[in-house]
Amino acid sequence: MLSKSLIRLITSLQHKKFRRQHGLFCVEGVKSILEFVDSTYEVNMIFATSSAAAKLNKIPQNIKLVSVNEEELKKVSFLTNPQGALALVKIPSSERISTEQLSGKHSLILDDVQDPGNMGTIVRTAEWFGFTQVIASLDTVDVYNPKVVQATMGSLARMQIIYMDIEALIKETTIPSYGALLAGNSIYETDFKQEGMIILGNEGNGIRPTILPHITQAVTIPSFGRAESLNVAVAATVFCSEIARRKQTF
Amino acid sequence: MLSKSLIRLITSLQHKKFRRQHGLFCVEGVKSILEFVDSTYEVNMIFATSSAAAKLNKIPQNIKLVSVNEEELKKVSFLTNPQGALALVKIPSSERISTEQLSGKHSLILDDVQDPGNMGTIVRTAEWFGFTQVIASLDTVDVYNPKVVQATMGSLARMQIIYMDIEALIKETTIPSYGALLAGNSIYETDFKQEGMIILGNEGNGIRPTILPHITQAVTIPSFGRAESLNVAVAATVFCSEIARRKQTF
Repeated sequence: MLSKSLIRLITSLQHKKFRRQHGLFCVEGVKSILEFVDSTYEVNMIFATSSAAAKLNKIPQNIKLVSVNEEELKKVSFLTNPQGALALVKIPSSERISTEQLSGKHSLILDDVQDPGNMGTIVRTAEWFGFTQVIASLDTVDVYNPKVVQATMGSLARMQIIYMDIEALIKETTIPSYGALLAGNSIYETDFKQEGMIILGNEGNGIRPTILPHITQAVTIPSFGRAESLNVAVAATVFCSEIARRKQTF
Repeated sequence: MLSKSLIRLITSLQHKKFRRQHGLFCVEGVKSILEFVDSTYEVNMIFATSSAAAKLNKIPQNIKLVSVNEEELKKVSFLTNPQGALALVKIPSSERISTEQLSGKHSLILDDVQDPGNMGTIVRTAEWFGFTQVIASLDTVDVYNPKVVQATMGSLARMQIIYMDIEALIKETTIPSYGALLAGNSIYETDFKQEGMIILGNEGNGIRPTILPHITQAVTIPSFGRAESLNVAVAATVFCSEIARRKQTF
């Protein structure tokens, strides 16, 4: 049974303001929920229909499992077709990243990415290609937005996502930064070395002008047609794939 | 002024049934409309606010330009924030493709791709990387769906999109086919030769089983993390980028 106050709490979590206030976000679907249970995230409570609950029987005792029917779930789900279970998960306390944590690997830096689908796809794709961190500017869409969580397809449970002043970070660090820009060195000919920050900009405006002077290298994905730009998640994909392929030995 | 019957016609075009019945689809935004005007597509009529109409003053005389106000446009627009202009564009008569048209280049073949955003992103990305054709199974989402048109960002105006029985095509042709699969040869080590068909499957189910035996080579994008799959538009991106990069000489 879902009380009115619980329904109010859960539906409020579609807004960033209330997610921050309660320190909670929602994860839907048995598969994704199990990935969060099996992660460093703290799962507080799971609401599940009887058929979904049957697949959740191995979750630790300290996670409260509440039985709901399809109708109740529909009231709180953010999905058009609810997936049988919804979990309330604790938002981890904000982390700061030191420049040492950036060394020896490649990280993605997002400058004001706004579309939830793009953000989620970037997190999912980054994990596929072996990245462990996504650093986002403070004005980038909230990764705990239900549409972003959904689009990460569980990858959020395993990726470190840090919101911070990326301009200060880029200025402070000695780690090379590579900006995804329409004019620059071809990505296929760029030496990404052993460490670096890949900077991807806003969907409409690209990387903000105040960051540009601090970028070590402008990198472009060569165009072979007349399309004027690439979607930011697509650009992120090409960078992730290029960096991953060079780590392989052929 | 927009008559009631025109409003009814335009709004009906969000449904495939009525698009096919009227042979029309909608394109929104001055920039995209101009790309269709400057293409092989036939633009029938444009509805524009006065500020948008000012940017459309060079369109050919035979295209009827109808003045509307913001409120009228809002009634017929498929967008949350209408972009000043909406055009009715004629759906080209269905084309058949001969296997000769596939030779000497690489084409994308979509098997039951369902998400409009994915479809639009694939068309846009394919154009960026120099592909000219996307061939889609008959059950793939309609490319003239307003969400797909929007996501192509104008690339639809320049790309050839063909809906056909892709299983028959793959069986008939001698051109090699490369299936995007979770197990197969690494994409980074695959020789894509001078021509080929890249087959990408449905979001949930992948490539349909009846097609699998006819694929020349199973190709996989190596995973470096624990993510279980990649979004289909992301997978398409990696294939397009890999094929494009090999056409360059370094």
